[in-house]
Amino acid sequence: MRPSGRTAEQVRPIKITRHYTKHAEGSVLIEFGDTKVLCNATVEEGVPRFLKGQNKGWITAEYGMLPRATNSRTQREAAKGKQTGRTMEIQRLIARALRAAVDLDALGEYTITVDCDVIQADGGTRTASISGACVALYDALSRMQEKGALKTNPFHGLIAAVSVGIVDGKALCDLEYVEDSNAETDMNVVMTADGKMIEVQGTAEGVPFTHAELLTLLDLAQNGISNIIQAQKSALNLV
Amino acid sequence: MRPSGRTAEQVRPIKITRHYTKHAEGSVLIEFGDTKVLCNATVEEGVPRFLKGQNKGWITAEYGMLPRATNSRTQREAAKGKQTGRTMEIQRLIARALRAAVDLDALGEYTITVDCDVIQADGGTRTASISGACVALYDALSRMQEKGALKTNPFHGLIAAVSVGIVDGKALCDLEYVEDSNAETDMNVVMTADGKMIEVQGTAEGVPFTHAELLTLLDLAQNGISNIIQAQKSALNLV
Amino acid sequence: MRPSGRTAEQVRPIKITRHYTKHAEGSVLIEFGDTKVLCNATVEEGVPRFLKGQNKGWITAEYGMLPRATNSRTQREAAKGKQTGRTMEIQRLIARALRAAVDLDALGEYTITVDCDVIQADGGTRTASISGACVALYDALSRMQEKGALKTNPFHGLIAAVSVGIVDGKALCDLEYVEDSNAETDMNVVMTADGKMIEVQGTAEGVPFTHAELLTLLDLAQNGISNIIQAQKSALNLV
Amino acid sequence: MRPSGRTAEQVRPIKITRHYTKHAEGSVLIEFGDTKVLCNATVEEGVPRFLKGQNKGWITAEYGMLPRATNSRTQREAAKGKQTGRTMEIQRLIARALRAAVDLDALGEYTITVDCDVIQADGGTRTASISGACVALYDALSRMQEKGALKTNPFHGLIAAVSVGIVDGKALCDLEYVEDSNAETDMNVVMTADGKMIEVQGTAEGVPFTHAELLTLLDLAQNGISNIIQAQKSALNLV
Amino acid sequence: MRPSGRTAEQVRPIKITRHYTKHAEGSVLIEFGDTKVLCNATVEEGVPRFLKGQNKGWITAEYGMLPRATNSRTQREAAKGKQTGRTMEIQRLIARALRAAVDLDALGEYTITVDCDVIQADGGTRTASISGACVALYDALSRMQEKGALKTNPFHGLIAAVSVGIVDGKALCDLEYVEDSNAETDMNVVMTADGKMIEVQGTAEGVPFTHAELLTLLDLAQNGISNIIQAQKSALNLV
Amino acid sequence: MRPSGRTAEQVRPIKITRHYTKHAEGSVLIEFGDTKVLCNATVEEGVPRFLKGQNKGWITAEYGMLPRATNSRTQREAAKGKQTGRTMEIQRLIARALRAAVDLDALGEYTITVDCDVIQADGGTRTASISGACVALYDALSRMQEKGALKTNPFHGLIAAVSVGIVDGKALCDLEYVEDSNAETDMNVVMTADGKMIEVQGTAEGVPFTHAELLTLLDLAQNGISNIIQAQKSALNLV
Repeated sequence: MRPSGRTAEQVRPIKITRHYTKHAEGSVLIEFGDTKVLCNATVEEGVPRFLKGQNKGWITAEYGMLPRATNSRTQREAAKGKQTGRTMEIQRLIARALRAAVDLDALGEYTITVDCDVIQADGGTRTASISGACVALYDALSRMQEKGALKTNPFHGLIAAVSVGIVDGKALCDLEYVEDSNAETDMNVVMTADGKMIEVQGTAEGVPFTHAELLTLLDLAQNGISNIIQAQKSALNLV
Repeated sequence: MRPSGRTAEQVRPIKITRHYTKHAEGSVLIEFGDTKVLCNATVEEGVPRFLKGQNKGWITAEYGMLPRATNSRTQREAAKGKQTGRTMEIQRLIARALRAAVDLDALGEYTITVDCDVIQADGGTRTASISGACVALYDALSRMQEKGALKTNPFHGLIAAVSVGIVDGKALCDLEYVEDSNAETDMNVVMTADGKMIEVQGTAEGVPFTHAELLTLLDLAQNGISNIIQAQKSALNLV
Repeated sequence: MRPSGRTAEQVRPIKITRHYTKHAEGSVLIEFGDTKVLCNATVEEGVPRFLKGQNKGWITAEYGMLPRATNSRTQREAAKGKQTGRTMEIQRLIARALRAAVDLDALGEYTITVDCDVIQADGGTRTASISGACVALYDALSRMQEKGALKTNPFHGLIAAVSVGIVDGKALCDLEYVEDSNAETDMNVVMTADGKMIEVQGTAEGVPFTHAELLTLLDLAQNGISNIIQAQKSALNLV
Repeated sequence: MRPSGRTAEQVRPIKITRHYTKHAEGSVLIEFGDTKVLCNATVEEGVPRFLKGQNKGWITAEYGMLPRATNSRTQREAAKGKQTGRTMEIQRLIARALRAAVDLDALGEYTITVDCDVIQADGGTRTASISGACVALYDALSRMQEKGALKTNPFHGLIAAVSVGIVDGKALCDLEYVEDSNAETDMNVVMTADGKMIEVQGTAEGVPFTHAELLTLLDLAQNGISNIIQAQKSALNLV
Repeated sequence: MRPSGRTAEQVRPIKITRHYTKHAEGSVLIEFGDTKVLCNATVEEGVPRFLKGQNKGWITAEYGMLPRATNSRTQREAAKGKQTGRTMEIQRLIARALRAAVDLDALGEYTITVDCDVIQADGGTRTASISGACVALYDALSRMQEKGALKTNPFHGLIAAVSVGIVDGKALCDLEYVEDSNAETDMNVVMTADGKMIEVQGTAEGVPFTHAELLTLLDLAQNGISNIIQAQKSALNLV
Repeated sequence: MRPSGRTAEQVRPIKITRHYTKHAEGSVLIEFGDTKVLCNATVEEGVPRFLKGQNKGWITAEYGMLPRATNSRTQREAAKGKQTGRTMEIQRLIARALRAAVDLDALGEYTITVDCDVIQADGGTRTASISGACVALYDALSRMQEKGALKTNPFHGLIAAVSVGIVDGKALCDLEYVEDSNAETDMNVVMTADGKMIEVQGTAEGVPFTHAELLTLLDLAQNGISNIIQAQKSALNLV
């Protein structure tokens, strides 16, 4: 029995609130249980220097945690003067995942930056970020279309992410913090609606994992992601 | 007529949500109209080096704005590697104001850090921060008392802050962004419930202001702060 | 009786030395008793990016303290790799005050930077900085006029600043260090020659201050500033 | 046909030179074809603060690239004043992989830092780093044992890493730079000698990858890693 | 004929003002013509970590230039967030030179930091810094002796520094800025009163210099330094 | 007898390996005994801003040490976020020396950056860097000529550097680490093939040095440099 009373396969209750703040072109508060992440998509004209003149767009992401999003207070990165390796790693992952959801050539010379800021953390902040950021990105692209900034919709389709892992020898989906901190193997998976993989990042925290365990975890992930994409669609009124 | 339909004296609708996040000892979302700030108070044992061995406590504050809290995206301070002068100035103001509300000797060797993070900005983020932080601080101190960490309550009384200013020659209370950006004079005032002053920061943006104007603005401020303290009390069930 | 033998109303002896260094367009050493600040105004063509193409000028300020300007040595900010919040706050204040003394539209596309470097500190470094910087700015503008870079003189009039405060229950003008470090209330005021206010920054260090105390302090400030402006005029041969 | 004339399954020629520099406790130059990484293991007494008093050790890693290890010069991170997100991500990966190879409890209160510095880059620098670092770590642990600093050998067994990917629709092992930069899917795998997984990091650069493709890539990886571990053993005279 | 009307051998007028500021244990304003440097020596108990427990002292130096010490304004290092290579190089030179003037064993566990801040620059700021810092150091050591902090005087004897160079084929002593910026060879020399060398740093800016030129420059330097040491003695009432 | 069995005049065995890495326009591994430095020259179009439009080129250098190039591990500068003063000082010296070997006007608007990275340190890393960098620069310039990027060869002639010093009262050439760390006087000399001087940097570590000692050291340096230039010529097939 999991702390939350869930079965091994179940994801936490997912809540997606669109238009959460008023300024951003896409603004989504996503909740995976007690994990709450605000995902704001900003559309700006122009592209980074390395893309200039190629007539294509760019999507990037930044990630942060409010200092007291966690159980004990974490030092504010802005005050410390640099982002941690963990933050860097996560925001690179979010950005790669989002770029896989969009045809950058069709986007044209725009940059979309999705800020994922963790309001409250209880495990799975990077997977919640990706899943919420995708909805914010969807809204931002829709708004660009409405305003005539895009000829065709560059969106390939929804993507979502979930963490899976092995805790006390048992494979579980959507780990919350107490599970995550005891996991022997921890895996973050980003997938499309039809179960194709965008990112698979599996890590053995203690004992190496077997091929069989990997397959079990991927199955769990696919099932969980399918539920999350269902929640995205429902929030976007696509069902 | 003000953009929001308010009279010159009126503050915006104030909403104070306590226990907004689950980890912090005090957690308050405060809203002054469309300005929304999350204020989390963290209690930690020990004090900064300069206070060691004096048997007194310390209260400090940090301030941040989510990159897209504003109309156009602001660069993330953590990514830039330093906090702006504006951020520094604001967090020093919040901390000074909060320290004035507490007897640091009675606090004992604890440090309370209040993080004020702006979720959405529409003018008055520093005054909303102070007003919300005071409630979060109250909750944190109450929790310390409940846990027996404090012998006596070191809290002097509620404080709150409001911005006042002269816009198009007219003195207004609790400026929202469009007003603030056109103000000839801009003043932030922090007061106690009985109208005593903790901070007065008045700035002539264009034309210098007169003694009479200063007095008018202080009157407006006192009235506005009295309304905000009413809202604090109501949120804290102190009425 | 104050440590220096002054009455409550008296400012310290003020000494203003123009042309203190040879390179700057305006170079003033200002002394408020033992507080000595070197104020160098630099005129450069062009304006910051946010003003480009608006056909107006900009005035900014930077503040620093030599490491041993103070009683015990302070770490060099350049070595530490960042300016403290106090430095940021002070240089923002100086710059705002100076901009209030000048018609930026009449200045044209020039940037004037006033560097205020504290050679020796004994309280009131920010108010001495503003008062000296105004004279350096005056000299720089005069020089621009002589060289034909300005059609009309953009200077509105002299401004000066003084600190006032309540020490042991008594309101005092132009606090020196030992007074300042014991003040219950500390206020920095920037005014024009005719007593109009540009900045008022009052802070209760311990007990909140009353409306009556504020008025007393403003009176003291106006009187002190009037003396400082007299000293400025005298240095500039304007009397 | 691959640019190097290899079959899809073949790893590049692997060369492992031990004792490459004279100061480090373990010093290995590893070459995967034209990719050359110097891996130096340093043993120091003591552990990071978060491990103090737990009677266990720590293994960490740092990664760097000489500025002209790459085809065009990359800015020196030390000159820029910060490490890139890519560097952070890689060094975290190397460290996690090495920790999985060692029983930290048996290590005792020592910290081993493995510096992986890329002398020449041609794809696969992170996998070469892990594979070389493991040998340097082995040598450092052996030396500790010889000196009597360890009671039992905390080494679990050799680990190695390889990159696999899909290029022009074809699954390839140990990608060199021209292959890597055209890969649709790119995966880095860290495994033990018996094929158990320590890290799997697969990324779709363009099109998402299927379950079947993942399995093919893992097969290729296992085969490649088995060859690399063979080379490690041979360098360590373990065969 | 040199711009200042000096002969090739002559140093500029040297002016040494002791007790220039009131807080520092040694405070000297040194002027080499228009070059003016404030040298403040601070005595603090304790030594840097690498000297702990060795029962010896340490002398270090920091160097800075006020932004408008130069003809055009230089960016403030504190604002930029780092010291330039030039600053680093100069402060290392000053510190090495000063350490050569003192018996660190006899100093005991004290650290003396000499801050050399350039108020106005006209060539030779590093040599003026060393020459003035030596006097400030002398005063600080004397004060330590008076206070009983030192058993014996650790001072070996006065040292001074001068720049020499070849300009338009002619060897000159104590270059001012217009000479220095046209020098083919530029050399900074630090010597003791009896002509022994502490530092010799000669640089060919364009054409390499010959052995004969080196000897000529050293002769000029010895003569110039002898004049500067005379000025130091005179300021210290040692003649 | 020196630790290495050399006579006082002898330099260590010098080994120069050209084309050490494959990407750089000039790539040289230079070894002075156990000191090994990789010198990579990169040619890029364009010049720094301060040279724009002057139709001349620029040569610069950067220096680094791998963390475990030294006997105990040195913290990685990239991780620390800044370069040490020592690094800055050395890379400025290397760059100045190299610029003295080239006619920047004849180079045209190109920038050549020479990265000197110390793989293993045993004293004399800066002199080995200069000596190796000169060969890498030679190769880079030759390659530019072959490609037609240069009309005339801007190279003035080979330069090299050696350290000399007084250890236990005896003048020695090309100090290795144990000698260097005990030297009373330490001098780095950069010369041309005909014994003209480009840089002379002599430092008394303890006792000041005499004119006679300086001359002895310069003699030793000239002899040592002549051997190093011989090795450079031999590596370049110029003999």
